[in-house]
Amino acid sequence: MLKELDLNQKMNKQAYKTLMDELKPQLVLLQQEVKRLGIPVVILFEGPRAAGKVTALAELILHFDPRGFRVHSTREPEPTDLRMPWLWRFAKKAPARGSITLFDNSWYFGMRLEQSKKRGRNYPGYIRDINAFERQLADDGCLILKYFLFISKKEQKKRLGRLAASKATRWQVTTQDIDYLKNYKRNRELMDGVLQSTDTQWAPWHVIPATCKRYARAAVMQSVAGELKRAIATKEAKEKLFESVPAQRTVFRLLPARGIETYDLGLTVADEEYRREKKKLQTRLRDLHSMLYSKKVPMILCFEGNDAAGKGGNIKRIARALDPRGYAVIPTGAPSPGELSHQYLWRFLHGLPRTGHISIFDRTWYGRVLVERVEGLIPESILPRSYDEINEFEYMLHKWGAVILKFWVAASKDEQLLRFEARQAAPEKQWKITEEDWRNREKWDAYQTAINDMFRHTNTDFAPWTVVESNSKQYARLKTLRAVTEAIEQTL
Amino acid sequence: MLKELDLNQKMNKQAYKTLMDELKPQLVLLQQEVKRLGIPVVILFEGPRAAGKVTALAELILHFDPRGFRVHSTREPEPTDLRMPWLWRFAKKAPARGSITLFDNSWYFGMRLEQSKKRGRNYPGYIRDINAFERQLADDGCLILKYFLFISKKEQKKRLGRLAASKATRWQVTTQDIDYLKNYKRNRELMDGVLQSTDTQWAPWHVIPATCKRYARAAVMQSVAGELKRAIATKEAKEKLFESVPAQRTVFRLLPARGIETYDLGLTVADEEYRREKKKLQTRLRDLHSMLYSKKVPMILCFEGNDAAGKGGNIKRIARALDPRGYAVIPTGAPSPGELSHQYLWRFLHGLPRTGHISIFDRTWYGRVLVERVEGLIPESILPRSYDEINEFEYMLHKWGAVILKFWVAASKDEQLLRFEARQAAPEKQWKITEEDWRNREKWDAYQTAINDMFRHTNTDFAPWTVVESNSKQYARLKTLRAVTEAIEQTL
Repeated sequence: MLKELDLNQKMNKQAYKTLMDELKPQLVLLQQEVKRLGIPVVILFEGPRAAGKVTALAELILHFDPRGFRVHSTREPEPTDLRMPWLWRFAKKAPARGSITLFDNSWYFGMRLEQSKKRGRNYPGYIRDINAFERQLADDGCLILKYFLFISKKEQKKRLGRLAASKATRWQVTTQDIDYLKNYKRNRELMDGVLQSTDTQWAPWHVIPATCKRYARAAVMQSVAGELKRAIATKEAKEKLFESVPAQRTVFRLLPARGIETYDLGLTVADEEYRREKKKLQTRLRDLHSMLYSKKVPMILCFEGNDAAGKGGNIKRIARALDPRGYAVIPTGAPSPGELSHQYLWRFLHGLPRTGHISIFDRTWYGRVLVERVEGLIPESILPRSYDEINEFEYMLHKWGAVILKFWVAASKDEQLLRFEARQAAPEKQWKITEEDWRNREKWDAYQTAINDMFRHTNTDFAPWTVVESNSKQYARLKTLRAVTEAIEQTL
Repeated sequence: MLKELDLNQKMNKQAYKTLMDELKPQLVLLQQEVKRLGIPVVILFEGPRAAGKVTALAELILHFDPRGFRVHSTREPEPTDLRMPWLWRFAKKAPARGSITLFDNSWYFGMRLEQSKKRGRNYPGYIRDINAFERQLADDGCLILKYFLFISKKEQKKRLGRLAASKATRWQVTTQDIDYLKNYKRNRELMDGVLQSTDTQWAPWHVIPATCKRYARAAVMQSVAGELKRAIATKEAKEKLFESVPAQRTVFRLLPARGIETYDLGLTVADEEYRREKKKLQTRLRDLHSMLYSKKVPMILCFEGNDAAGKGGNIKRIARALDPRGYAVIPTGAPSPGELSHQYLWRFLHGLPRTGHISIFDRTWYGRVLVERVEGLIPESILPRSYDEINEFEYMLHKWGAVILKFWVAASKDEQLLRFEARQAAPEKQWKITEEDWRNREKWDAYQTAINDMFRHTNTDFAPWTVVESNSKQYARLKTLRAVTEAIEQTL
């Protein structure tokens, strides 16, 4: 893409002025429409140093209302960023519906920074992560505009020289810039490879010849205005910005899954054995947590299950053995308005553990295919996409190095009734039972279907489900404790 | 406090068990009450290494519902933290109403970490910041429980030795720990000094002898339960947790302030001079921004003013001269529910610039004493406290090294009417004018009073107000541009 690019495109001052006078008032109004229609927009600028990315971005934002956009400049990752999945720091900044996020350098630059730190990830891994990330955003209705500004070696040398000549800007020229210039051809090839492998239907690249600054700025402004217009028209027509094709998704190998009705939920354990085993497992877990921490392995424990089946009790028995500096219980309730204005998985980014830490999710992203499905909050038609997105999300976590365990804490319908009644009788437990629990109970069969579909579509080998038979709380607690300790042992 | 402490207090197993059996169910219910009444709670643990802070914290959280609390472990500050006011990373984590935030080591430990980096701040500065921060939280209804766990030198040596002996925990013992032990007496004196100077009416210390772990855990649990009960009873009686006394506030020297009615808002500038001067000032500002960046000076520009007086236009003329990597416009709208559940100034923490950056606030924390006052959203009785809190906030920013400019962009009532009408006539400006603007206009006189009171109480020498006469937009733009460039020149 880059080698054949005609870098000599120019625009004269008068043509530029005429175009700008036409575009500026348009951009103001287009942003209002984007806001009104709730379209999230990503505009990112990539390209070599001194290609004019920042100038183009600066010109653009002057015509936007500051209440509707944010600019993020990508720098070296911070220590915390390095202890999270590499895309995490970018994904967190995805725009809310109706707002525009501009990136001066984005995950593409971030990928290069990460690679130079040699964090053991391979090139296809980065590309896969990026394409999945951008496609998930696009599937959620996000308009993604990617601009790559490019200049010739000669022009770049000239511009860096000018920066170095002035006292006020000298600090902006780094040794990396000089190195880059020396290896111009090789770098062009590298960039070309990245551009080609991420030039997707849902997020195509706009490559801009930027030798003439006026031309580059005008090309960006014109493209942004045109793309916003197109997105607004599409959205007004209630059509999708981009038609999702299943073939574009990663296919994951699924393990066979048994229906929930085939499990014997009445398994029990003797009191004596429970006490002895629990103590042994907790002592073991305490040591394993310390080793997990020192080896910097992140762990994600997902708890889903029937109401009153004992998720909380299981979590408490695990938590008791853990150092509070190294774990957190992440409760998942109904999403807030701010969370609802982002892609579904966005809110779970905030609860992910750092390396060496454990996040225990009390309910999880599976809410989408459980409660949201049963309550009709999402159309059935997006279920396949939802399973895929969840698998992709967990695969990213797995590739990052996380150990993922997913527990379905299962009590029978009769056992649930007994526990509901017990909760209502005990003052210190009354807060645990609400009208909603009773309503959910009425939908028992719909949940059974949703649960079995969930098992079938998300029982991957990197993040398999464990059904915890929980009519006996003691049996259940031993089973989860044992599963957690064994998973850590296998990993270390 | 520490030297005289009886470190040999003990509790036997049976007494501990009896007490715990009594406290555990209480804690569950107390947390529910805290949630119901919307009381924010801070529980922090400080003390030397191996004193048992983490064990006490771990025991406590087992009895809380994870939906109502969060644990923060204080570590070395990250690069971003070091580019913000030192308390920033802690203040961001303050609890929302009805939730509990537990700190395993807090700003007290943070202060030591910062001091060891010799960032040029003095001890009284830290103490002043801490006391102001805690008092602002307490004034906002927050219950602050501070526990200091202490052990003898002998006991500490024993515990560190035990950690070092096991393969699983050896990594937990650092050279700092050994150093600390060597200078036990001196460290005890240092800690004593901090305890005494921060043992305030609104956030007293609870010093716990922790040689006997059971005793320490029981003492913490009993204290937490007792304090929660007290806070709940006080809140139920609609009384304040702590009665704020004006004498506990810092008194700032205020510069004389003229009433807004004494300004000649009709000042003008010739077209020719405007164009020439604007260009000159913007070119100068471009260079100054670069120097500000390289010298790592943070700058905060606050824009307040009458509707349609031209805040946006002023901001745009400044922004045009700035590198978008180094500034952000922070628009301030009505607070979200999440923001409303925190102390008033909390939400502005997120918009503060890093060192070397510029934050341009389009409306600010002065909303409290302007719109919130005029609309009757706050009682007049909290105005004195609000002015004080704002001054303290700006003083903290000033001491951190920030250059703070506050602009009142003033147009006359007649001029405002002309502009409102012009906005309604132009399609690309209609979004800028709402019913609310017309309603505000009816309250013109109430605003004049609020503005003059604001000038009188917040015109400090470290963050003075600049009135920008704005009936002529050109005059106003030159005045703000000039004020910004001059302020940077004086600083560098």
